[in-house]
Amino acid sequence: MEVKDITNRDQDFAKWYTDVCLKADLVDYSSVKGSMIIRPLGYAIWEEMQKVLDKMFKETGHENVQMPMFIPESLLNVEKEHVKGFAPEVAWVTHGGSLKLDERMCVRPTSEVLFCDHYKKIIKTYRDLPVLYNQWCTIVRWEKTTRPFLRSREILWQEGHTMHRTAEEAREETLRMFNVYKRFQEDYLALPVITGRKTEKEKFAGAEETWTLEAMMYDGYALQNGTSHYFGNHFADAFGIRFTDSDNTLKVPYQTSWGVSTRMIGAIIMTHGDNNGLVLPPMIAPWKVIVIPIGDVSDKLDELTNQLKSNNITYKVDNSNKTPGFKFAEAEVKGYPIRIELGARDLANGNVTLVRRDTLEKVVVPYDKVINKINELLETIQMSMFNKAKTRRDSMIYEASTYDEIKDINATKNGFIKINWCGKTECEDKLKEDFNLKSRCLIDGEKITGNCPVCGNKATLRLYIGHQY
Amino acid sequence: MEVKDITNRDQDFAKWYTDVCLKADLVDYSSVKGSMIIRPLGYAIWEEMQKVLDKMFKETGHENVQMPMFIPESLLNVEKEHVKGFAPEVAWVTHGGSLKLDERMCVRPTSEVLFCDHYKKIIKTYRDLPVLYNQWCTIVRWEKTTRPFLRSREILWQEGHTMHRTAEEAREETLRMFNVYKRFQEDYLALPVITGRKTEKEKFAGAEETWTLEAMMYDGYALQNGTSHYFGNHFADAFGIRFTDSDNTLKVPYQTSWGVSTRMIGAIIMTHGDNNGLVLPPMIAPWKVIVIPIGDVSDKLDELTNQLKSNNITYKVDNSNKTPGFKFAEAEVKGYPIRIELGARDLANGNVTLVRRDTLEKVVVPYDKVINKINELLETIQMSMFNKAKTRRDSMIYEASTYDEIKDINATKNGFIKINWCGKTECEDKLKEDFNLKSRCLIDGEKITGNCPVCGNKATLRLYIGHQY
Repeated sequence: MEVKDITNRDQDFAKWYTDVCLKADLVDYSSVKGSMIIRPLGYAIWEEMQKVLDKMFKETGHENVQMPMFIPESLLNVEKEHVKGFAPEVAWVTHGGSLKLDERMCVRPTSEVLFCDHYKKIIKTYRDLPVLYNQWCTIVRWEKTTRPFLRSREILWQEGHTMHRTAEEAREETLRMFNVYKRFQEDYLALPVITGRKTEKEKFAGAEETWTLEAMMYDGYALQNGTSHYFGNHFADAFGIRFTDSDNTLKVPYQTSWGVSTRMIGAIIMTHGDNNGLVLPPMIAPWKVIVIPIGDVSDKLDELTNQLKSNNITYKVDNSNKTPGFKFAEAEVKGYPIRIELGARDLANGNVTLVRRDTLEKVVVPYDKVINKINELLETIQMSMFNKAKTRRDSMIYEASTYDEIKDINATKNGFIKINWCGKTECEDKLKEDFNLKSRCLIDGEKITGNCPVCGNKATLRLYIGHQY
Repeated sequence: MEVKDITNRDQDFAKWYTDVCLKADLVDYSSVKGSMIIRPLGYAIWEEMQKVLDKMFKETGHENVQMPMFIPESLLNVEKEHVKGFAPEVAWVTHGGSLKLDERMCVRPTSEVLFCDHYKKIIKTYRDLPVLYNQWCTIVRWEKTTRPFLRSREILWQEGHTMHRTAEEAREETLRMFNVYKRFQEDYLALPVITGRKTEKEKFAGAEETWTLEAMMYDGYALQNGTSHYFGNHFADAFGIRFTDSDNTLKVPYQTSWGVSTRMIGAIIMTHGDNNGLVLPPMIAPWKVIVIPIGDVSDKLDELTNQLKSNNITYKVDNSNKTPGFKFAEAEVKGYPIRIELGARDLANGNVTLVRRDTLEKVVVPYDKVINKINELLETIQMSMFNKAKTRRDSMIYEASTYDEIKDINATKNGFIKINWCGKTECEDKLKEDFNLKSRCLIDGEKITGNCPVCGNKATLRLYIGHQY
């Protein structure tokens, strides 16, 4: 593999992104239009994400299951809002072998209807509730334009689907998992996400409330990086799900669903990456360290890797016959948090050189302090990456109280804009039409003093707006 | 959930199997014809299998990737034998949203062609070899009759796909992974598998050699429980994959693929299960122990579960308000290797009762010896389950040297039959036609003295034949 120049991030962000995806060996294009190949490093990052999230889901009482991947058309049609939202973008299977199917089926774009179909059979009494299920799978949405990790016809994700005895319990669950996502993205991915409720216009097809995690990318665009939905009980009602409560009356249970996907890898790239390539937060990096031997240091190499192993520090060794300079560049493209340059000259002085990927700073440490220093650096890097991203994000949030201010900011700056809002969809539509600015999420806990900058009527809400991926 | 009677295993094995699948909450039927729902216990078993196998794959140098799930028709058509084998049983996607596709695509029935399409781009020189990839995914085969885990339109599996510089290396890989499967199925699933090479007729569409693991079920039928294929290089050739070798000549690399699936759960059920339900081998049971408190023992329960936790013994507690008898039955249906009856009366005498699932034997042990005893029992149960299955299997292998002997054995016994064979497909076809007996695998290392029992010509091979799922 050859590490070629990566497009400058400030000159052409879109091209820079694609370069990093390809040159870090995260993905490759395939002969299948709209579908990507996830290569070993990309998939290893996804496996780390799965490992951490799956543990968090199980700790909050969830069990994994697997539903069918096909949805018969009649089943998709049961809930009207839902089918309206998804039917235009599904892939239809019409033939099995050489036979035409009696009823065509789509590949799941999401699995609410499949879970409801199952719940109807397994939920009989209040003792069967709550049902707390999660599924790791691939979904399909027939997108016209696609970009690696951000928008793809096939998406690897997880989807939680739960049923509850009361609306209150279901709302609690919606927020519980929303907060699991927030904690995961902040603590592991070092993403300072903005979180809140979606507007009516932007919520999930069929949901009553959608809670969203909005990550701001380096270019100021928003990436919707996970959602948690409260459905009320109209989905369950449409599917005829009923349970006998303790008072012996028949009731309809309340429902949630929540999901995150490989899109989070895109968020990592576009938040932390730089002109040398990928920068992985230590907490999610599949290998925390890359060891690059320089000269004949095989004895010390074995000793060092044994130490790394016994200290549970994951690592790779680049033992290829490329030049050290080439190996350094490749290690940078692939984003290993720390590079260890294990050189004969350093070792003669009892030293090893460590290089931080986030700052490219060199640290020469005594060989016998190397494990301590690595552990210390990993913590420092993780914190520093979060803080850097947060500082940048905060510097790219603007406040507009009039239509002209929105226009001005949109013409000259990149980032999110905070506005007052009357709550009417028409005003959202106008912002979208005039500036391509879409609602990100509602803002809680801030004083609302002015008027809606679009219609001039009294504002009742505060809102983030921004461009989006 | 109610534990109803399970059909007697010796009266109606097929019905017994379905009963266990449903009553142990392993699967449920869905509205999607031919697709099953894998419920929490079924999926947890699959997760255990994935965890162990994935580690074995990584220890042998493999990396996980993810290919597209769709195959454009033209790509499926590249290798002639392969398309002939799979085209009759694929699901075709013809529309995306409301638009008809220019070229229809099938949902992958297996991914050789997708991997080859990718290899063509990433393999340039001998330095790029070997490529050792694996993928965990769902495949689709449009089966007409389906049974949970055994034959389903959607199959959860892993598929390894590797490319090598030489035929010898590829052959080594084929057998290496074949032996990984064998070790896994014997040591973890307690399945005494019969292993060997498939005949020409029975090998994988497009492969040069297929190695198979044949598990014998309680009823004497064979379950093909995993295969490893050596492809030579004609697939790679058809796809135009070339690499520059160290001697500067252009060569075609050699290929393998290998896979196992959720079918292994079916093998566990039909090998170890009994009239009380599922019996899980301790090494693959997601929870080794179920604790059933009897009376008010909450103090001791906490103490016990803490001890289990700190000794890394996975467990569940049945704290429901059902009767102990009901709980025992349910614990048996679900196959937990050990049941702990934590009763006030036993505790007053300083004792706890353990019940082995495989033998239903009760063991009363002093409370302070409980962890040691559990660890000892788990080992005993694992070994004893393997030995029991092996003894039964061995008692159901017959030897036939004439056509009449085959006829006789087939009419009166269940199991595998060992025969001499001339090697001609016509003789295999006749056994299939006359008795529905299919070749399982060739037998290595046994002396061949007689003639082919079908055509009477000199035998050159030894062969297992049997009925199959």
